[in-house]
Amino acid sequence: MNVNELTPLFNFAEMQPRQRNSNGLTGQDIISVSQFDRDLLDYVFARAREMRELVQRVGGTDILKGHVLTALFYEPSTRTSASFIAAMERLGGSVIPITQGVQFSSVSKGETLADTIRTLEQYSDVIVLRHPEMGSAQVAADYAEIPVINAGDGPGEHPTQALLDLFTIREELGMLDGLKVAMVGDLRYGRTVHSLTKLLLQYNVSLRFVSPEILRMPLSYMNQVIDAGVDVRETHDVADVIKNADVLYVTRVQKERFSDLAQYEQVKDQYEITAELMTQAKAKMIVMHPLPRVGEIHYNVDKDPRAAYFRQVQNGMFIRMALLAAVLGKA
Amino acid sequence: MNVNELTPLFNFAEMQPRQRNSNGLTGQDIISVSQFDRDLLDYVFARAREMRELVQRVGGTDILKGHVLTALFYEPSTRTSASFIAAMERLGGSVIPITQGVQFSSVSKGETLADTIRTLEQYSDVIVLRHPEMGSAQVAADYAEIPVINAGDGPGEHPTQALLDLFTIREELGMLDGLKVAMVGDLRYGRTVHSLTKLLLQYNVSLRFVSPEILRMPLSYMNQVIDAGVDVRETHDVADVIKNADVLYVTRVQKERFSDLAQYEQVKDQYEITAELMTQAKAKMIVMHPLPRVGEIHYNVDKDPRAAYFRQVQNGMFIRMALLAAVLGKA
Amino acid sequence: MNVNELTPLFNFAEMQPRQRNSNGLTGQDIISVSQFDRDLLDYVFARAREMRELVQRVGGTDILKGHVLTALFYEPSTRTSASFIAAMERLGGSVIPITQGVQFSSVSKGETLADTIRTLEQYSDVIVLRHPEMGSAQVAADYAEIPVINAGDGPGEHPTQALLDLFTIREELGMLDGLKVAMVGDLRYGRTVHSLTKLLLQYNVSLRFVSPEILRMPLSYMNQVIDAGVDVRETHDVADVIKNADVLYVTRVQKERFSDLAQYEQVKDQYEITAELMTQAKAKMIVMHPLPRVGEIHYNVDKDPRAAYFRQVQNGMFIRMALLAAVLGKA
Repeated sequence: MNVNELTPLFNFAEMQPRQRNSNGLTGQDIISVSQFDRDLLDYVFARAREMRELVQRVGGTDILKGHVLTALFYEPSTRTSASFIAAMERLGGSVIPITQGVQFSSVSKGETLADTIRTLEQYSDVIVLRHPEMGSAQVAADYAEIPVINAGDGPGEHPTQALLDLFTIREELGMLDGLKVAMVGDLRYGRTVHSLTKLLLQYNVSLRFVSPEILRMPLSYMNQVIDAGVDVRETHDVADVIKNADVLYVTRVQKERFSDLAQYEQVKDQYEITAELMTQAKAKMIVMHPLPRVGEIHYNVDKDPRAAYFRQVQNGMFIRMALLAAVLGKA
Repeated sequence: MNVNELTPLFNFAEMQPRQRNSNGLTGQDIISVSQFDRDLLDYVFARAREMRELVQRVGGTDILKGHVLTALFYEPSTRTSASFIAAMERLGGSVIPITQGVQFSSVSKGETLADTIRTLEQYSDVIVLRHPEMGSAQVAADYAEIPVINAGDGPGEHPTQALLDLFTIREELGMLDGLKVAMVGDLRYGRTVHSLTKLLLQYNVSLRFVSPEILRMPLSYMNQVIDAGVDVRETHDVADVIKNADVLYVTRVQKERFSDLAQYEQVKDQYEITAELMTQAKAKMIVMHPLPRVGEIHYNVDKDPRAAYFRQVQNGMFIRMALLAAVLGKA
Repeated sequence: MNVNELTPLFNFAEMQPRQRNSNGLTGQDIISVSQFDRDLLDYVFARAREMRELVQRVGGTDILKGHVLTALFYEPSTRTSASFIAAMERLGGSVIPITQGVQFSSVSKGETLADTIRTLEQYSDVIVLRHPEMGSAQVAADYAEIPVINAGDGPGEHPTQALLDLFTIREELGMLDGLKVAMVGDLRYGRTVHSLTKLLLQYNVSLRFVSPEILRMPLSYMNQVIDAGVDVRETHDVADVIKNADVLYVTRVQKERFSDLAQYEQVKDQYEITAELMTQAKAKMIVMHPLPRVGEIHYNVDKDPRAAYFRQVQNGMFIRMALLAAVLGKA
């Protein structure tokens, strides 16, 4: 065999080179909600709407054909990994699924995150990273030449969750300015409510924080809210906010957060959303939840048209489709 | 950036909307073999034959492009999950593989099956579910708006296995009516022999049940067989059926089923199919097994053209391709 | 429903049958580096170069559309499995990922490797196998009718690693004949250095083996090298080779190999490649490593243009693309 006489497998002359249009996100990492101003949010939401229409009409497209996403989950997250996988596949791209959250072979041999990232980027066009340590997504982004999307870095951020939350409010209620948003449950440790709060500060909203005393919104976030001049109140009881809320964003109150179980027993009923409680809410409002829930929203609420939490899940796929397309230059 | 002036990513006007033709299975769940009458079986088998020809000629097609299957396996099943994944991919669809059977993150946080299903269906067009509890597939189907395919619900059903078994008999022997089908091994706990028996009752067959005393076919199935007026006999010994059987369907006799090991030692040899034993069988007959086997069919039988168990495996892919296309409206 | 009047789903008459061109690898298993002579290596490298250009220009292609790869990893290997998955996907093929290295359901039920292989080949066009036992890849290949690619069989071989190593040297330095290749670290147990050595014997190279006394190159390999008439020297110290080496192939020296830790402490510094040490190396040479590393190449070397180990990783994907296309008849 004379290699010089080999018939080429491909006719490169006839291939359309990859087209990348520049947008604010092309080639960028997505690490934190603080990267998103109102203009950029408008852009992402407009694209997410296109994605929704695409999925509803035809299911998917081919614009990310020839692109590979590595889903690198150091801890398992069925919901988030499935959402990103579906998003990439519906855009015509492929996925390397490393999603079981078990010890990777390389990690168990002592490899650093930086090396794992620089290895996997050789195969991929974009990396989605879930990692238990705060700041790990930024470390990965610093080392990678391809875009890294933070899918949760421990107590740090989970920006695509916050974006899908904000998008859900916008789509369900048709606006963001002027809304009364009540957040309920564990406001101290809840990563989602922290990030959503930060995003909401870009809009003219009222905030109501409902939590047990020991799970109140941390000082740093409260100060940001107050500095922004937002109308804000804290309370221990959902009853105080249910009548006027446009958005009731519910999170789980975890028993294990309480050293005094009597205290837990005392408050827990105040954080259970029931069909009965919903009779007090406005006709046009929504109930949201990042899921999974274990009892803080009763099943008898599910058929209420105001129960938006499963639509919220689907919005996650549309947002992730929009972000993947954007960072990969489809704009 | 003015979002209103954004160039759309997609030209929806030029997109062909998803075409769904109606057939008896479009949009349906597949939970039990009792959904299938002879007409529907004929339909599925005709489609499965097309799938076989497709795979043999060109490997795959694009008819399920833009469709996403979630393979949700609460317990691992390499064979079944791989079969569904290959089936979906050969039809041009994509897969969210949740197949390791480990604790999912959402499940370990206490999420119910209903919520997991309602979450995953937001990303998917069809869900394939393996779950250890009987009835779980029906629960999932009740909650999901998209089709759910039962890939085994504990001691319940595993309908696609029964369909591929029946299809194998039909393709290997060219008919179903008039056949003598012998089932051998653990007839008490074997889900596959129960479901296959139910399907065979729609045809004019003779049945021979071969098992140790403690692993005899349960009363409920025996009564169904007798009520159907089928020619049926039970025996302890393969030698009693080997000469006349058109189909020898072998399953594993598990040692752990016996409290008296002496009893196990006594019977086990009667359930080992060997090349020597096969000399007594008809020239035109087949040996089947749902696999995995551990010794009940000797390796020296593998090269016998009557050994159909690996062809049976491949028929599983064709049947699943036919079912996926059908429930997703390609008919 | 009359099945005979069913409208066919597919128009087979209009389908292009799968085209398979014959090349030296079409339909072949890839088990060992000893299958590759210089001509075949030239062929694979020429194809790998095409794959690199393809990926750089457009990301991927469709030539393996309708083909399914089963990635069957009995022990996890993030790097290798991700590389094969990306390779298959960039060629337009699909993957059944069985990559977690956990107990498979079939295996835990006692199924043999032969049966697992004969089952999975029913769904697939090619199988990539990682298995802890030497010789397992050959067993799999003996039973499978479709091509099997060895992705590491314990202390046996890992031929695609050796091919990517050789390809990296060729591409980085523009030649193979005439080079001085130094291998450093654990030469006794290191599968990669053994296989690379075997491949290099086909070229006119000089070899320098640098290791602690207890980790010297095994007799059998040394004898092969000597029999081939190659210029070879062994030493304990990197300093002896750094000045003249064209290739410094570094592997990990594992502490646990030493019964006398004092001995380990004494040698370990001699096997750490640092920026300082690199000042002694030639201007045109490369440092390679099969990765993961844990300290034997310092991070301060990474930005040195002679650090080739991450480019080496990417070459793995190109080599695997070339091999997959070749065994599946795209030549």
